[in-house]
Amino acid sequence: MEEKILKNVLLRTPIVHNITNYVTVNDCANIILACGGSPIMADDYNEVEEITCICNSLVINIGTLNESTILSMIKSGKKANELGIPVILDPVGAGASAFRSNTVRKLLDEIRFSVIRGNISEIKTVYEGSGSTKGVDAAQTDAINESNLDEIIKLAQHLSEKTGAVIAITGAVDLVAVENKAYVIRNGHKMMSQITGTGCMLTAVIGTFCGGNPDQLLESTKTAVCAMGISGELAYQKTKRTNGGTSSFRTYLIDYMSKIDTTLLKEGSKIESR
Amino acid sequence: MEEKILKNVLLRTPIVHNITNYVTVNDCANIILACGGSPIMADDYNEVEEITCICNSLVINIGTLNESTILSMIKSGKKANELGIPVILDPVGAGASAFRSNTVRKLLDEIRFSVIRGNISEIKTVYEGSGSTKGVDAAQTDAINESNLDEIIKLAQHLSEKTGAVIAITGAVDLVAVENKAYVIRNGHKMMSQITGTGCMLTAVIGTFCGGNPDQLLESTKTAVCAMGISGELAYQKTKRTNGGTSSFRTYLIDYMSKIDTTLLKEGSKIESR
Amino acid sequence: MEEKILKNVLLRTPIVHNITNYVTVNDCANIILACGGSPIMADDYNEVEEITCICNSLVINIGTLNESTILSMIKSGKKANELGIPVILDPVGAGASAFRSNTVRKLLDEIRFSVIRGNISEIKTVYEGSGSTKGVDAAQTDAINESNLDEIIKLAQHLSEKTGAVIAITGAVDLVAVENKAYVIRNGHKMMSQITGTGCMLTAVIGTFCGGNPDQLLESTKTAVCAMGISGELAYQKTKRTNGGTSSFRTYLIDYMSKIDTTLLKEGSKIESR
Repeated sequence: MEEKILKNVLLRTPIVHNITNYVTVNDCANIILACGGSPIMADDYNEVEEITCICNSLVINIGTLNESTILSMIKSGKKANELGIPVILDPVGAGASAFRSNTVRKLLDEIRFSVIRGNISEIKTVYEGSGSTKGVDAAQTDAINESNLDEIIKLAQHLSEKTGAVIAITGAVDLVAVENKAYVIRNGHKMMSQITGTGCMLTAVIGTFCGGNPDQLLESTKTAVCAMGISGELAYQKTKRTNGGTSSFRTYLIDYMSKIDTTLLKEGSKIESR
Repeated sequence: MEEKILKNVLLRTPIVHNITNYVTVNDCANIILACGGSPIMADDYNEVEEITCICNSLVINIGTLNESTILSMIKSGKKANELGIPVILDPVGAGASAFRSNTVRKLLDEIRFSVIRGNISEIKTVYEGSGSTKGVDAAQTDAINESNLDEIIKLAQHLSEKTGAVIAITGAVDLVAVENKAYVIRNGHKMMSQITGTGCMLTAVIGTFCGGNPDQLLESTKTAVCAMGISGELAYQKTKRTNGGTSSFRTYLIDYMSKIDTTLLKEGSKIESR
Repeated sequence: MEEKILKNVLLRTPIVHNITNYVTVNDCANIILACGGSPIMADDYNEVEEITCICNSLVINIGTLNESTILSMIKSGKKANELGIPVILDPVGAGASAFRSNTVRKLLDEIRFSVIRGNISEIKTVYEGSGSTKGVDAAQTDAINESNLDEIIKLAQHLSEKTGAVIAITGAVDLVAVENKAYVIRNGHKMMSQITGTGCMLTAVIGTFCGGNPDQLLESTKTAVCAMGISGELAYQKTKRTNGGTSSFRTYLIDYMSKIDTTLLKEGSKIESR
């Protein structure tokens, strides 16, 4: 299935509309290109609807939220729902301020999301309407580990039931869940948390994969998470070989995403189905 | 001639004022430094005129257009015209929305551009007032190739006649044209389309070269297109040698721009004069 | 002392709130992570105060100043003062426009800064209320060198006396000064001026080090300047070894910051105490 997802992306070159933050926007555009999509970043109220209309998916990322783009997010999201194209939410830093938490609530009220991806602190905020977010990184007390996995899967499945969205929670271990199904994915490397934008980039890849496979949202999300994790593993190995540091790692991460093929996916994926 | 252009840039360190998008702005600043200029990014209405006054050229890029910066673009553009410094337009995604197409029309009404650079879809939109833009990348049906080259040269020359600007159309083959003269440039590599910002960066380099050679707009534009293409070729070779991917390619592209000299330019340029 | 500063950062993972420009913001976030901190970029008036409250320091950078973020800067700065966390100012391009110079004055009136870091042109503008800024890079006539060092130290110390802030002036030679003490630091490499963001990144590192050592502002600033300079030296050597250019240098600069340890600091620091 993962191979089929990837092939469709490469065949269809989905155009991905991003309303996103100004911190990691360049990485997001580059990784969308790397994994086979075509990015367009546009957030002005005057054009967002029209842009959504020429796209295959929409990614909404609240990383550097500001008042004027919230209106653009809602306008684009409603249009995407009308057109039936996938809409992905990255609730960056939800819980870090009332402004972010309230905005997430408003977005969930107005837009039907296909996928929601965040770290556990962010997803808990989405779930509970409050959380213990430590800035934009996940709080230590929240980290996913083998002992709290079952509990977090239940939370994800309940949130999926409430929102109708595929829920992806990423961290040391990654989860992708819908109401009656969950995947635990053990790809990736801890160096991914030492650069900015890994989460945002993954959300952009999910947007690309869903854009190329609008009828396979769960499988597309799972495949994107695997592809990102495998790229992280290979990037770490190359960083070590070349005596590099975190910035080389970032370069190699996008490099490997541009080289992901069905063989790498098939051989590298560490997926447990629950 | 290309060597003279390059020498003047290195001698004069032109300061380039950029009103540009937040996706590729860092790459643009870095490539301006790499090719011998000094970048300044400023877009607030309260300061743009003053900033233009201390610069040698102005680059206007509509990549992530928003209502408030349009006024800044017009204010800066008029000031640059008054001062007689080169103004370069990059109509990113023109045709993708009415907002972009209308803004391009407004900019062309209010500002006298020295150079306009875009892909063929964007330039057709500028020319016709409408186009078949596929997001921010050129539509396949529009691609320049050897069979439609003559026709596209005519379009470029007609647009140059209408606007008074040097017209640069980039793609698999690049064109630089004025009313009565055209250059076909066959440098570059297709990997340049697999990263974001190649077009924006080229426009920034054109801005730098024109800033250092304000009386040689056609030759500066041609030289910038060659320098970028040669950097792309060398970057591709190094990417292959190092088993890199698209992100390494981006690094090497800017690397080679920082190493371009008159020898590389003379030996590497593939220019056909028409 | 430098080792102690670094150890505290690694131990405490200070969260750094950045209200900054959209040109170098990604580099700033990545270098904060590289040196042991956790970055959060947020500039909307609706949330900045709350974000400051969960952070260990605040960095205000006026690189792409716009009217709406000035209010956010002041609001955050006042809150940080109230909380007693360090506030760092990077007056990018001060002197290049009245808008920037006036904003710097307003910020100094409203906020008590812990550290102010700029090139000599910017610091002179802060000092005199006017300067000879050449865009965002230091004017040649202003460059620090061995012959004007004493004079510039006096200026820095007088500015420190007026503002209560540690003053860092960076260039070919770096200075860190308070009223009755000054350090001259001779680390670094001239390639640091051939990429965008070296100054902004250093300010972000200062913010991180001060966030981890709020009672050691002078020593934290000095250590950050050394760490950045040493990273620049090592990055230059690797760039040369790999036949790289300016973009590889940028990658390696952040790489080495992610590898800085007490040994590299102790062996590499070139600090003269005055």
